[in-house]
Amino acid sequence: MTETRWLDAREAHLWQSYRDAYRELTTTLEARLVRNSGLSGADYALLHPLSSAESGVLRTRDLGRVVGWERSRLSHQVSRMEKRGLVVREECESDARGSMVRLTEAGRAAIAAAAPDHVDAVRTHFLEKLTREEQEQLTKMLDRVIADLPKSDC
Amino acid sequence: MTETRWLDAREAHLWQSYRDAYRELTTTLEARLVRNSGLSGADYALLHPLSSAESGVLRTRDLGRVVGWERSRLSHQVSRMEKRGLVVREECESDARGSMVRLTEAGRAAIAAAAPDHVDAVRTHFLEKLTREEQEQLTKMLDRVIADLPKSDC
Repeated sequence: MTETRWLDAREAHLWQSYRDAYRELTTTLEARLVRNSGLSGADYALLHPLSSAESGVLRTRDLGRVVGWERSRLSHQVSRMEKRGLVVREECESDARGSMVRLTEAGRAAIAAAAPDHVDAVRTHFLEKLTREEQEQLTKMLDRVIADLPKSDC
Repeated sequence: MTETRWLDAREAHLWQSYRDAYRELTTTLEARLVRNSGLSGADYALLHPLSSAESGVLRTRDLGRVVGWERSRLSHQVSRMEKRGLVVREECESDARGSMVRLTEAGRAAIAAAAPDHVDAVRTHFLEKLTREEQEQLTKMLDRVIADLPKSDC
């Protein structure tokens, strides 16, 4: 058993700032989203990939992969959104076991109404805090972290 | 109403990578924590500040501020940990309305057992993916994002 190399003050600061920045930024963006559009962060997270997909429809499995949620969380969130008329569940034509999620007209209208202010918030609180060079450095760092993580099968 | 400046491909890539990196890193670290120590990410998040506090005790309000959780989430998590003997709730002596959370001996033993592998995982999957210079740049960027976020009162 090798001795633990505890984080020094500089490393602990970075690790704390990394988690605080994400959490506080998410809190700010989601509060503004709810206030201005009545959508939750989870609503927006699903509406966004659906609105970009061809015909506004995705396999449930692929939608789960995009947002990185477990099946039960995804299923509960889709049910909540189905009740509010934002999406509908459909059978997959080419695969009897597969299910699909389709954006409704109301869902498309909801994200179209919410997106301009949300994008403005992402610019104001995140992108515009970084110079162009910092944005490029940060993208490289994050993509390296992601690429080296162990891949899960789901 | 000014026209929306949608994210261009470069900006959308950074924004996606920022969220993916956090989510995938968290998933990796929490899975390893559960596997190696039986603690969840939420357990560790509360045990860590308590184990660093004087006498292992913090006001519930201050603990909530450190982890950035809403009151109901904190209260449920403390209840779960109390049932497992990791913490106990106490009245605050100097303020009848305040409550405190105290680490038990079992709680202290649990985080002491979990911490070496968790710190090793943070090094392996995050800190060691960045050069010393990148770590310093990243800390500066994140602290700037945090400093400019609107502050909430809670």
